[in-house]
Amino acid sequence: MANLYSDIIRDLEAWVGEAPEAGLVASYIPELATVDPSHFGLCLKELNGNTHSCGEADVPFSIQSISKVFSLSLAYEKFGESIFERVGVEPSGNAFNSLLQLEYEKGIPRNPLINPGALVIADLLLSENENAKDELLQFVRKLCNNPSISFNLKVAESERVWGFRNAALANLLKAFNNIKNEVEAVLDFYFHMCSIEMSCQDLAMAFQWYAGLPAERDEKPWTLSGVQIKRINALMQSCGFYDESGEFAFRVGLAGKSGVGGGIVAVHPDEYSVAVWSPRLNKKGNSVIGMKCLEYLTTQTDSSIF
Amino acid sequence: MANLYSDIIRDLEAWVGEAPEAGLVASYIPELATVDPSHFGLCLKELNGNTHSCGEADVPFSIQSISKVFSLSLAYEKFGESIFERVGVEPSGNAFNSLLQLEYEKGIPRNPLINPGALVIADLLLSENENAKDELLQFVRKLCNNPSISFNLKVAESERVWGFRNAALANLLKAFNNIKNEVEAVLDFYFHMCSIEMSCQDLAMAFQWYAGLPAERDEKPWTLSGVQIKRINALMQSCGFYDESGEFAFRVGLAGKSGVGGGIVAVHPDEYSVAVWSPRLNKKGNSVIGMKCLEYLTTQTDSSIF
Amino acid sequence: MANLYSDIIRDLEAWVGEAPEAGLVASYIPELATVDPSHFGLCLKELNGNTHSCGEADVPFSIQSISKVFSLSLAYEKFGESIFERVGVEPSGNAFNSLLQLEYEKGIPRNPLINPGALVIADLLLSENENAKDELLQFVRKLCNNPSISFNLKVAESERVWGFRNAALANLLKAFNNIKNEVEAVLDFYFHMCSIEMSCQDLAMAFQWYAGLPAERDEKPWTLSGVQIKRINALMQSCGFYDESGEFAFRVGLAGKSGVGGGIVAVHPDEYSVAVWSPRLNKKGNSVIGMKCLEYLTTQTDSSIF
Amino acid sequence: MANLYSDIIRDLEAWVGEAPEAGLVASYIPELATVDPSHFGLCLKELNGNTHSCGEADVPFSIQSISKVFSLSLAYEKFGESIFERVGVEPSGNAFNSLLQLEYEKGIPRNPLINPGALVIADLLLSENENAKDELLQFVRKLCNNPSISFNLKVAESERVWGFRNAALANLLKAFNNIKNEVEAVLDFYFHMCSIEMSCQDLAMAFQWYAGLPAERDEKPWTLSGVQIKRINALMQSCGFYDESGEFAFRVGLAGKSGVGGGIVAVHPDEYSVAVWSPRLNKKGNSVIGMKCLEYLTTQTDSSIF
Repeated sequence: MANLYSDIIRDLEAWVGEAPEAGLVASYIPELATVDPSHFGLCLKELNGNTHSCGEADVPFSIQSISKVFSLSLAYEKFGESIFERVGVEPSGNAFNSLLQLEYEKGIPRNPLINPGALVIADLLLSENENAKDELLQFVRKLCNNPSISFNLKVAESERVWGFRNAALANLLKAFNNIKNEVEAVLDFYFHMCSIEMSCQDLAMAFQWYAGLPAERDEKPWTLSGVQIKRINALMQSCGFYDESGEFAFRVGLAGKSGVGGGIVAVHPDEYSVAVWSPRLNKKGNSVIGMKCLEYLTTQTDSSIF
Repeated sequence: MANLYSDIIRDLEAWVGEAPEAGLVASYIPELATVDPSHFGLCLKELNGNTHSCGEADVPFSIQSISKVFSLSLAYEKFGESIFERVGVEPSGNAFNSLLQLEYEKGIPRNPLINPGALVIADLLLSENENAKDELLQFVRKLCNNPSISFNLKVAESERVWGFRNAALANLLKAFNNIKNEVEAVLDFYFHMCSIEMSCQDLAMAFQWYAGLPAERDEKPWTLSGVQIKRINALMQSCGFYDESGEFAFRVGLAGKSGVGGGIVAVHPDEYSVAVWSPRLNKKGNSVIGMKCLEYLTTQTDSSIF
Repeated sequence: MANLYSDIIRDLEAWVGEAPEAGLVASYIPELATVDPSHFGLCLKELNGNTHSCGEADVPFSIQSISKVFSLSLAYEKFGESIFERVGVEPSGNAFNSLLQLEYEKGIPRNPLINPGALVIADLLLSENENAKDELLQFVRKLCNNPSISFNLKVAESERVWGFRNAALANLLKAFNNIKNEVEAVLDFYFHMCSIEMSCQDLAMAFQWYAGLPAERDEKPWTLSGVQIKRINALMQSCGFYDESGEFAFRVGLAGKSGVGGGIVAVHPDEYSVAVWSPRLNKKGNSVIGMKCLEYLTTQTDSSIF
Repeated sequence: MANLYSDIIRDLEAWVGEAPEAGLVASYIPELATVDPSHFGLCLKELNGNTHSCGEADVPFSIQSISKVFSLSLAYEKFGESIFERVGVEPSGNAFNSLLQLEYEKGIPRNPLINPGALVIADLLLSENENAKDELLQFVRKLCNNPSISFNLKVAESERVWGFRNAALANLLKAFNNIKNEVEAVLDFYFHMCSIEMSCQDLAMAFQWYAGLPAERDEKPWTLSGVQIKRINALMQSCGFYDESGEFAFRVGLAGKSGVGGGIVAVHPDEYSVAVWSPRLNKKGNSVIGMKCLEYLTTQTDSSIF
């Protein structure tokens, strides 16, 4: 099996080198717009400890919305099922930053993996710990066993300067009383969260914990139960790719999450975690090459969860 | 493992006997409104051939929307990926009979498991075979190895008489030219499809083929590839429970499909298929007791796909 | 003043002869698609009896949605304020044939001058008189003092053949129980209504009654009160031009109603009625040249209602 | 005629004294929530100079959204038709503070008399004059010939503290680049605008200019043309009462504008202006008693614009 994964990753590396240039890098802030679109990295970690990687697997990049899985996990660990009184578990069927649904549904975001849901989660964490930024960073460092993980403060600041739509969402949530802290404080935390930088190696390492119990890692990083981890995976499956979640289930068949920095993570329970990075995005905001790599992976290994 | 399933099903039988009466039977046609709400049946079939059942597992009931998986499968087998030019693969995020999305999205239904999507699939089948009703029936009979499976003509007629919303959907699809046959013919086929009656035994038998290759069944009922079957399962996962698909993924963690007759089928790939029937529905149109039974099953066996 | 109107109409006739060809004739049924786009007629009738016309003012054309004012008036006369229990008085803010609002607002159309509202009015008339088609025709003949006014049966039939969107609306209204008769019967009446043919002369004559009491016409054609007529005019003002009603108020400043046959009628209370016909439509479905003529008229005479 | 108006106003004063207490005062900020709901004032000014008033016609109150007519007028005078490149002229068909339409229509508000439209107008004025607050105040003082008109700074501040929904709208407009200044600056101007206090006397005086040329007032307060004033009136007609604009046209039949402070102004071109104040609001945010008074006025005088 290890050989199989290695073979596939070799294929992918070759294919990516010749893949046509499709899609555009995210452009809503200068820091993302100027990223070299030709970056590519991939890292797959089996639960048994075998690691397969290629390209710039150890180069950190802006994880953006992938961070929403981390903040959800931290809040779930701390507050349990009560978080679902303030955010739902259904796919939105709309663009990630849409205000429509939020207005119809009276300020209860559809799920914690779209922007308004992540803002509510940020508010929850902030209500309990004013140093929530640090707390989240420590949590992520523990998950991937890398104490150097940090925010990119320039990205965080740029998100703030250009973050009018997120400010609109946060103010609307506040109008519905589903944000308790100051809007500015919640946005500040949220923008920092999005600015976390990690490599494919880091992400694959962190998401091993969502796939099961990694063979070589002694101490669990959290008190989340098996059922709770399965539920986070279910949320990734249902809601992890904005309004392309069905497409990802259809073509790839893994639970996963994407970010507009071009990263995608995915989890095959009891088997492996995988992270891929390529900055060019399709119209739905998901990495073109990342999607294709994961489709190839599950097709070749016949290993989707379905 | 067989013992485990047997134990769980004994627990469920006991629990259902004392479960509080929650939810209401479907009332939009007289034939469903007068069904005894206390019916209950369950059948689980492992791929190795072991069968576990309880209650009225062999009593046929109206499968309603579960039939959408069969028509999708037949169309997928006959026309391949081209069907997805006329219907999407995304969760709708709306009620199963909503016209909103269809209007915004110019007559392309979000997926084949909501009413407008199933109407398009019905139109596809009808374009190629004017005896599509018979063809579908033969297909279902083969899947569950039961030649007595039939339409309930009284139910089909009642669906037609009260089917104004489906008629609205079909006419809107026709206005967008995504129905090619006569609206009446498509509705007729659709209403017959919904009226198919099967028992939990029949359904578990049929859905074994979605779980993998059953041990004791010699001949494959179709030419669908492994990837295609996985894709149908992915669609069930994303879209099988109307606007409660996320909830089902979250609580149960299987690919499945529900019908307003009170039936639910679910599939654990490589493990088992399961069908449960209890006519009382929650507000989203899914069987209250059916949902709870499947949640108990996957929690006790720690066997969700995530 | 008579001279003023005559001068203006002379100007318009000259201008239209040289106007650029903008817009497209309605194309959703063959009978409208093949109309010569260069037709033009205009007729203004002062309450004092003076008539000013130009072009093909006496050539009948398909009045289409203008007929909705007639059916509303007839229903209002027969059933009084009770009609507004089944249809509202607000502008829709949406395209004339939109299903969205109807679904959100549980089958109560926004107003009687959009398609779903006119379908409800048709249903009302049909419930009380199974010969509603004849009754409406008599009513219109009386208003314009022309016993030869008739349906164009070929147009009515073509509307039916291509009327999938109206069939969708009618079925949705039926699903909400806001249509009491058979869907087919209501549609049949509606399509006949739309197929009425009248000339600008006929229309100006009929709409004199909405402007006040014409000097030379002895017998009132209805028992509608002054307040009720003002209310019909208010509805035309608010809702007469689909989602361009604000634009018409803004540029022209009269109460009026348009049809996709290219006709527009408008009323200046206590002063005059006016009808104009030119088949090329803008994107909102209103006659390009008709709109411009009326804007010129009210600007030159400084005679809007505001 | 003067006697007629006097009689009607005497009737109204008597009726209001015994009217049932229906509706609730606006409660979204403490300063409005604590207003005595029994306030009542009315002032009608004929163009010939005759004034008829009753109740607390000279008590200033918070004009709120009525101020949107003043800011629109000032912007229209300064920038002409170009303002309609950034805001439409159509009724919204939605609640005054809805974000839905704004999102679908890419940041172009439906009209300048709903919140997002007024925010765009505020931005326009601010772009040209950083002392736009003073400029608007001078403009309003000139219109009503009362140099003591002022902002209520406590109300303005309270609007800011509770103004999350307006902040959401402003940020969304900014995201669509239809606000050029700092969001905070635009909101500050907007909230001050809403806090202007005027009496019914002041408002009737100011709105005489929208009805025509008042007999006794020498100098025009603006350079707006007759056509432009008619267009502002048309906008009030189409869009002045949120999603109850059709109802106001239907029942009252005048161009007008309401505010959540309980004020309503209306204009009968060439005849009179009228202002009424009663703080209890219906569900759409319009004064219950104000609406009824104006309906009585136009019914008794048979003087609607239709």
